[in-house]
This record gives sequence, structure tokens and C-alpha cells, in this order.
Amino acid sequence: MELFEAMYTLRSMRRLKPDPIPDEQIRTILDAAIRAASGGNQQSWAFIVVRDRAVKDEIAAIYLEGWRALKASGYGQAPPDAPEEERRRQGRVLRSAEHLAEHLADAPVWIFPCARIGSQPPTLTSGSSIYPAVQNLMLAARALGIGTTLTTIYRRENARVSALLGLPEGWDTAALIPLGYPEGKWGTAARQPVETVTYGERFGQPFFGPTADSD
Amino acid sequence: MELFEAMYTLRSMRRLKPDPIPDEQIRTILDAAIRAASGGNQQSWAFIVVRDRAVKDEIAAIYLEGWRALKASGYGQAPPDAPEEERRRQGRVLRSAEHLAEHLADAPVWIFPCARIGSQPPTLTSGSSIYPAVQNLMLAARALGIGTTLTTIYRRENARVSALLGLPEGWDTAALIPLGYPEGKWGTAARQPVETVTYGERFGQPFFGPTADSD
Repeated sequence: MELFEAMYTLRSMRRLKPDPIPDEQIRTILDAAIRAASGGNQQSWAFIVVRDRAVKDEIAAIYLEGWRALKASGYGQAPPDAPEEERRRQGRVLRSAEHLAEHLADAPVWIFPCARIGSQPPTLTSGSSIYPAVQNLMLAARALGIGTTLTTIYRRENARVSALLGLPEGWDTAALIPLGYPEGKWGTAARQPVETVTYGERFGQPFFGPTADSD
Repeated sequence: MELFEAMYTLRSMRRLKPDPIPDEQIRTILDAAIRAASGGNQQSWAFIVVRDRAVKDEIAAIYLEGWRALKASGYGQAPPDAPEEERRRQGRVLRSAEHLAEHLADAPVWIFPCARIGSQPPTLTSGSSIYPAVQNLMLAARALGIGTTLTTIYRRENARVSALLGLPEGWDTAALIPLGYPEGKWGTAARQPVETVTYGERFGQPFFGPTADSD
């Protein structure tokens, strides 16, 4: 698959079929993941592949609780004064996130990318040596027709999840990636136009000239 | 360019030509970056493109200081008892990192991906909505023949850099990505075999059977 096609059509897939994923595809996906750079090429990462139903059920229960709390806080809901189109789109995303929360354990494969964490308190950059690999993982899955989504909602009970996964001291999970063949279609997700988030020299200073379609 | 070719040959490029990069290529690169997912599709990101020599010189001086301190701490040096091949490889990486530190301002374009930071203290997952976009950015650059590397060494004086970039309260830079046409060749960087970092069900439990070439 062509690189830009993969990047543009990699949308989060939250409705997944229970069909199994062959080990060879998991190897292809993870071998692509580890091609990403890491600070000092330390590769202080690990990938835990979970298929055991009992473990999935236990973590899925934690996840569902986390999802409900998040939803109750207003997460993912468009403001009431948002344009009709945006409210509809947010409604669709919300329903698909709800579907994932209710069927998480049915995803045939989960991957927890893990990172060694230093003794310093974390900063924004703590994930700089693991999420590039996660993006490679999801792009490779896309090329194989396997849907993914990056979620961290289970972290509400992070210590319990770490214990279930047998994480040693000094390691943490960076995400839960459920994998499965998608029910839905690949497509390009909505984004603000690039002109609105690109600045020149200083924050807030437009880089690109005004364009017709970036009102 | 084919996706897997891009992922496998995206090595960090630290020796860059000063030749300018057309705005259209910067747009292509950033438009690919923003296709990455972000939590709740919030897209709480911004990309500051820096070409101003005075700003680059000031930040490059901070960077060089940071690099020297890091090097003095033993960063990037293979242990003296490491195999000859590994020591040579680490030596090459060290020299190229040194070259970057000494010529950083000559890279024609820098991009600082920025993220809105919440009021909660950061965790490992704080970067989960910006580094996937950074990986897309670097893959897109690779496809255009433009070299990149992800570095955070400037963060030693993060407040000064944020002030130079005019960052408002509640935002932080996630990395500095120098971009330029590379002096060197694209190629696949060394990695531990995927079998050694992939676990099944629990941390430490091999997922793949033993293979001939993963001794």
C-alpha cells in the first residue's frame, strides 16, 4: 500500500469482527513498529499481545467503567451550539466509542505497547520513544486490512492492569490497541485544515498564505 | 512510496544539506501529520515552522550546550565491553549526533510540533496525541526524500525555547524536527529482533516461538 494512502485512510476502527488474526500478521505489524526511532536507539520498549479471554474480560470491565465515567463527564459530546454537521459527527464517534467499550473483549487481539520509564517524573516528551512505534504499528495493520484504535481509558486503574500484565517495576503501558478486521469502511477522518494549525516562526503567526477553503 | 519501504528506510538523518525546502513540500508533510489520530479527535496540536536564522542560532546554542552535557554524562556511548561491531555503530551514531549539534542551525527548516497540555501532571501517555502525528510527519518527509530526526535535547532550557517561539500558557513543544535533504543514504537501522521484545499474555513470556536468527 502506498504510504500516503495508508496515512490518510487510517481511521480509528472501533467496530471489529471477532475473526482471529494470524501470528504472521502480528509479526509483520510489530516488526514494522520497531522500525520507529527511539531516544539514543535504546529501544526500551516491549509489546504484550493479549488473546486470553479471561484477561481481556477483566481489563474490559475496568475499561467499561472508565468509559462510563468519561462519558458522564461530557467527553466526546459536541457543545449544544455546535453546527448540526459537527454534532452528528460527534454523535457517530460517541456511538462507536460506546460500541468499543461494550465489546472490547471481542476484539481478537490486543496489543499493549510498553515503555521503560525513567526515575525522573514524566513530561510531555516521555512518550517520544514509544508513540512513533505505535503509529507504525497502526499503519502496518491498516495495510493488512486490520483495524486499530489507540486508547488509554483503562489507565483509570493502571496499577491493576499493570499487575494483570505482569509488568515489572520501571515499566508502564503506553496504550491499549485492540486489533481486528473492521466492520466499517476505511476512510479519511475529519480534520481542521492544516493552515489553521501551522505557524511560521512563532506560535499564532500564519505560515501558509490564506487559501480559499480554509475560512 | 510503499508504506513498508518508508517505515523500514526512515532512519534518523543528522547530516543535512542547507538547500531550501519548498513550501509545498512542507504543506504535504504537515497535511500528512494531521491525519494521525488524537484523543477524542481534539487535534490539540500546532506546528511551528522555523526558518529565521536568528531564532535558529539562539536555540542551536542552547541545543549545543545540552548536547555537550548529555555527552559528558556518557550518553550514546557503548559500554567498553560491548562487541566491536556495536561499539563501531554507536561511534557512528555519536559522531552524527555531534555533527547535528554543531550544524543544527544550517538545517533549512525546523518544525516544532506542539501540544496543548492539560492541568493534570503529565504521564507517559501525555504524548499519545502528538507523537503519532510526528511519525506521520517524518514518514511523509522520507517519501519526499527529506531527512528528519526527532530530538528533545533543547528542552534542557525549555522555558527559554518556549518564550522564543511565543508559546502561550498551556502549550508545550513535543520535539524539534530539523528537516533537510540528507547527505547520507536511506537505509534500515539496527534493531533488536522483534521476537525479543514481543510477549504473549504477560510481560516476559515469549509470544513467537524461537527462530533460527534471533539468538
